[in-house]
Amino acid sequence: MPADRTALVISAHAADFVWRCAGAIALHADKGCDVTVLCLSFGERGESARLWKQDGMTLDRVKDVRRGEAEAAAEALGVHDLICLDLGDYPLDFRRANKEKIVDVIRKVQPAFMLTHSQYDPYNTDHMNTMQAVLECRMIAQAWGHNPGEKVLGAPQLYLFEPHQTEQMGWKPDTFLDITAVWSKKRAAIECMQGQHHLWDYYTRLAQQRANHFKRNSGGQSGGRDCLYAEAFQSVFPRTVDEL
Amino acid sequence: MPADRTALVISAHAADFVWRCAGAIALHADKGCDVTVLCLSFGERGESARLWKQDGMTLDRVKDVRRGEAEAAAEALGVHDLICLDLGDYPLDFRRANKEKIVDVIRKVQPAFMLTHSQYDPYNTDHMNTMQAVLECRMIAQAWGHNPGEKVLGAPQLYLFEPHQTEQMGWKPDTFLDITAVWSKKRAAIECMQGQHHLWDYYTRLAQQRANHFKRNSGGQSGGRDCLYAEAFQSVFPRTVDEL
Amino acid sequence: MPADRTALVISAHAADFVWRCAGAIALHADKGCDVTVLCLSFGERGESARLWKQDGMTLDRVKDVRRGEAEAAAEALGVHDLICLDLGDYPLDFRRANKEKIVDVIRKVQPAFMLTHSQYDPYNTDHMNTMQAVLECRMIAQAWGHNPGEKVLGAPQLYLFEPHQTEQMGWKPDTFLDITAVWSKKRAAIECMQGQHHLWDYYTRLAQQRANHFKRNSGGQSGGRDCLYAEAFQSVFPRTVDEL
Amino acid sequence: MPADRTALVISAHAADFVWRCAGAIALHADKGCDVTVLCLSFGERGESARLWKQDGMTLDRVKDVRRGEAEAAAEALGVHDLICLDLGDYPLDFRRANKEKIVDVIRKVQPAFMLTHSQYDPYNTDHMNTMQAVLECRMIAQAWGHNPGEKVLGAPQLYLFEPHQTEQMGWKPDTFLDITAVWSKKRAAIECMQGQHHLWDYYTRLAQQRANHFKRNSGGQSGGRDCLYAEAFQSVFPRTVDEL
Amino acid sequence: MPADRTALVISAHAADFVWRCAGAIALHADKGCDVTVLCLSFGERGESARLWKQDGMTLDRVKDVRRGEAEAAAEALGVHDLICLDLGDYPLDFRRANKEKIVDVIRKVQPAFMLTHSQYDPYNTDHMNTMQAVLECRMIAQAWGHNPGEKVLGAPQLYLFEPHQTEQMGWKPDTFLDITAVWSKKRAAIECMQGQHHLWDYYTRLAQQRANHFKRNSGGQSGGRDCLYAEAFQSVFPRTVDEL
Amino acid sequence: MPADRTALVISAHAADFVWRCAGAIALHADKGCDVTVLCLSFGERGESARLWKQDGMTLDRVKDVRRGEAEAAAEALGVHDLICLDLGDYPLDFRRANKEKIVDVIRKVQPAFMLTHSQYDPYNTDHMNTMQAVLECRMIAQAWGHNPGEKVLGAPQLYLFEPHQTEQMGWKPDTFLDITAVWSKKRAAIECMQGQHHLWDYYTRLAQQRANHFKRNSGGQSGGRDCLYAEAFQSVFPRTVDEL
Repeated sequence: MPADRTALVISAHAADFVWRCAGAIALHADKGCDVTVLCLSFGERGESARLWKQDGMTLDRVKDVRRGEAEAAAEALGVHDLICLDLGDYPLDFRRANKEKIVDVIRKVQPAFMLTHSQYDPYNTDHMNTMQAVLECRMIAQAWGHNPGEKVLGAPQLYLFEPHQTEQMGWKPDTFLDITAVWSKKRAAIECMQGQHHLWDYYTRLAQQRANHFKRNSGGQSGGRDCLYAEAFQSVFPRTVDEL
Repeated sequence: MPADRTALVISAHAADFVWRCAGAIALHADKGCDVTVLCLSFGERGESARLWKQDGMTLDRVKDVRRGEAEAAAEALGVHDLICLDLGDYPLDFRRANKEKIVDVIRKVQPAFMLTHSQYDPYNTDHMNTMQAVLECRMIAQAWGHNPGEKVLGAPQLYLFEPHQTEQMGWKPDTFLDITAVWSKKRAAIECMQGQHHLWDYYTRLAQQRANHFKRNSGGQSGGRDCLYAEAFQSVFPRTVDEL
Repeated sequence: MPADRTALVISAHAADFVWRCAGAIALHADKGCDVTVLCLSFGERGESARLWKQDGMTLDRVKDVRRGEAEAAAEALGVHDLICLDLGDYPLDFRRANKEKIVDVIRKVQPAFMLTHSQYDPYNTDHMNTMQAVLECRMIAQAWGHNPGEKVLGAPQLYLFEPHQTEQMGWKPDTFLDITAVWSKKRAAIECMQGQHHLWDYYTRLAQQRANHFKRNSGGQSGGRDCLYAEAFQSVFPRTVDEL
Repeated sequence: MPADRTALVISAHAADFVWRCAGAIALHADKGCDVTVLCLSFGERGESARLWKQDGMTLDRVKDVRRGEAEAAAEALGVHDLICLDLGDYPLDFRRANKEKIVDVIRKVQPAFMLTHSQYDPYNTDHMNTMQAVLECRMIAQAWGHNPGEKVLGAPQLYLFEPHQTEQMGWKPDTFLDITAVWSKKRAAIECMQGQHHLWDYYTRLAQQRANHFKRNSGGQSGGRDCLYAEAFQSVFPRTVDEL
Repeated sequence: MPADRTALVISAHAADFVWRCAGAIALHADKGCDVTVLCLSFGERGESARLWKQDGMTLDRVKDVRRGEAEAAAEALGVHDLICLDLGDYPLDFRRANKEKIVDVIRKVQPAFMLTHSQYDPYNTDHMNTMQAVLECRMIAQAWGHNPGEKVLGAPQLYLFEPHQTEQMGWKPDTFLDITAVWSKKRAAIECMQGQHHLWDYYTRLAQQRANHFKRNSGGQSGGRDCLYAEAFQSVFPRTVDEL
Repeated sequence: MPADRTALVISAHAADFVWRCAGAIALHADKGCDVTVLCLSFGERGESARLWKQDGMTLDRVKDVRRGEAEAAAEALGVHDLICLDLGDYPLDFRRANKEKIVDVIRKVQPAFMLTHSQYDPYNTDHMNTMQAVLECRMIAQAWGHNPGEKVLGAPQLYLFEPHQTEQMGWKPDTFLDITAVWSKKRAAIECMQGQHHLWDYYTRLAQQRANHFKRNSGGQSGGRDCLYAEAFQSVFPRTVDEL
């Protein structure tokens, strides 16, 4: 991996980057890649049921708790920079000024690759709207006439990380990443999510299932490489290679 | 690339491996990979119009000419082994005994990756039937109970090379390979196909168009790597990686 | 059916609920289910050609006539509550405040299931935008942080009722409902639509065609249940069952 | 459930019915439904790697072991009738005479619903060929002119049970079945599969993941019904109902 | 229309050409086009339930009755040539020799366009297998090496006529044909099908629904051309034109 | 072609109409069809990299240069009317007032057919948003209640012209147009695009490739009509015809 490689994760709500790609984050951070995580919201309205069930809860208090959890998780994973845009959730507000904030981050990071949500999600329109917004912001970041003088973006791959209930989202993974070496960091980050205890084991089992798929595709019963935990991703753009 | 890497191309008719993946063959051969080409037929009935227009032509003479062209092309590309099964074309005959011959080749080659036709082709059912047969033969080659004692196959990637009129076939490339370094070999192989002169420039232009796509996806207007000729492929199976 | 079951129909224009699911409305109303119909607009601009051909017609007069028709149809079907939001049509205006009005209705009704338009409609973008808006509003209605203290929504099924020219919309029905018992009510509601006389027989024939499909799928030539009129629906979400 | 309801599972290889729908089998058996399991092969060539690694193994011995496992699993699940056709595997042999054997079973069982493999499976063509064969045999069983005098088949639903690596198969579940009550039976059946120990925990975790999905779709954070183990299915044909 | 234009309809069972494209046949016959109808079977096993319910019925008697109906319908429509191959039905037998018979007919007719069944049909695999066979036979008919000396086939369009339950087949029409002028002939042909009386009105209503779609797409409420009866088709291949 | 036929091209950025449908424009202009080209933006931010690399460049200067190129190209093609809306690019601004400007143009032109971008484009969201906007504006233009008194739109076909990297966009052409007769005009228009010199040969080769496809589909090796340059299009709506 080139020494100065960077990556950018764009997460609709504060916890998405943990469930869906904490392994990829920790693994690349370990390799010396600066990984920036951009949380568009704290998931304060839609993914904080447990907090809202407490007496006297307010929106600001929910945000504070969720921000704290995200910061702790980022710390556990070796995230280079955690940026929270506080755009509101359920629904996310993608007015033009907000998209330009995302463009600014993309240009600042100049990522070698990006990660975000699936293209379709009938359960959670914030997720699919985020993916569409990321495509648009990637395009704007490539425009020489947008803030002329800034360094324009190249053509980074965009990986779509794993949604909940993959088949309902039409999401099809084409890349399995072995995260065995950083699993303890992912589990630590998961355990920062105090309000969603019911998902801890769900996402642990998921990583084990994906490891089984990793093995199937790396050799199967004739020498598939061992792997205990994995994450899966769908690529939006084709790869350019010098060897098959 | 590991020293003993091998690859297997399965071509429905004698010329398909030239138009569709001669660059990949020459490139990997240059890197020391043993590339075997398996031609299921000579294209003697369906892709030899020019020969059939000659007086007194016979099936055997057509086959001889086409075999000669395939051998010359294989020579130009540095093919390790050219195997012609003579299964008949338009239509290919995929009876079980014939599939077992394909399995035998797969097991003998033990390819790190395979290349064949697209999944759908309403113009040429030989092409799509070949793809289905390759999936089946790959599965049989993995079976421990098929010819017990032989080395079983692992889980090689299967790349689908470019069909004619891609959009009609529902073929979507996810991998672009730079073949600039070996272009002269591909062109030489193309020129071995005396009966299909009308396709020489078609496939030359195609390689140039794919090079444009290679550049778009490797950086675009902000430093896309230069590339003059490329080939495109669609992967059937997901990749297993240690880094995104 | 549980005693207190409720349902919510979200109709882009005033007449859509009649053509597309009047049978389902009348049938469930008969069973004691409170069915609320939410008309986002009166179809005053785009689906009132006959009125606009009259001299001196105004937008308000068109709305009045269309509202009257919708009320008469709702009466004929036993609709529990007819709500008209008057959001404008061709195009519908889905600004955030308008979506929140829809969320308010969803929360008030707490439907066991919802019905709305198909996901795609190149002829009528109001229809597909309604479907997207309903997904978003369903999500917001589930958020504990949206108007804290209100009862949040569960996970009601969303059925997509039949669009015109189904194949062009990519709509595929998975549920056929026998509406023979309430056909006379549907026909009475259809006849309230004075400005679209050309569609009366069209939707009558459609119900007969769907009845044929009902029979095919309930036993076919070996005892398919008789059915004279039916409606068809596509489910967005999977079912949860205790028996196949 | 009607007293004389029957069901038919068509399993390509001996163990498929266990991994993929043992819960559905045990649950319906408990309700008094006669469930017949039809194994087209023993998986003797392709899914018995562990046995083939033993010295001096023969095809017949593999079949015997696999048949024994299947019988034990069927016993654990309360299967009414286990039928093994021994059609050979990797690949399954679907010559016409073999399809007629399947038709005979379908007609004899007269199932209210059937279960089989997914429509697509590039890893295992036996699976997708089985699905195609089941469609064809269902059609033949409906023909009044096939073995005139026999009772013809009605229009049973065909459920596609869960393949390995669902997203690669294009399989999308629309029905989640709560199998918590019979989980111990499914686990017991799983443990009969001595040669595939590595899959025991895989399919246990899978049932837990599907239970999470069951809960999401039966109410979510607002009262989703509890469920510890579930199975998921895709329906081929639409449902005919009297109520949404 | 050129004076010597010919067309070929390939119908799996004896009645399919009537329900699905009798209007197209009669219309083109009226214009001087020689339309050949090729029935692969009589539908004697699978689509003759009413005959089989009679005492003492035999396969030959069923075939005779069905052949008579097909001949009467062909007569009513002005069919140039009705060819019945008697390949058996439920399932059709597509062994190679049978495909060559189809190739012979295609070459003899040299059609300007062809019509056959939809690509997918889970209710009736004869239908989708016919479509696949037609693609293969079209390819063989184009091969210069198949029966050298015969006139090879050009590149005729292949239209897929309307299946029952279109949405379940993934069939999407792109061409609507006005058959008002020949409706009485289609109805007369329909009434030749004595054993399927229940479909007479079904296919009459269908033609009326398709006429509504014809009007929608030829101008809609601003001058859509009048049309009382229509048929719909899906094209397999792109069109080549001199004007949009 | 009727004497007073008109057509409308809606181009997201100034140069799109040249690369993607200049042949169709010139061909129809030659036949006496009034072709209006509507450029939503000048591509001033996103498709003018070469200009922005010049010192002291400003947005207005870029627009002026690009407008000049578009005017020269329109002149070369015989465009009836070139309208530039200057809505901004990367991203295009589709606020309601802007859509109404598009509706005004559609109503004024009353096109027999329209051309615009593909439905999907992950590289360039302006392109896919334009297609969605065109669908919406077409619908509004058909509404009798939109600016009552104006002539409403009929049901013009909407052709989607060729995007870059077609397979990534899911674009499938169904119509190939022979533009050999006007090729020199298209090349002249292409050469007006001074800032995108790298695309001149790309789009020349593309026209040659499409000519090969034209020939394949108009007869193939048995008399396919000669054609040196072609363009390809995807239709959104079905055709209504009197003959197949």
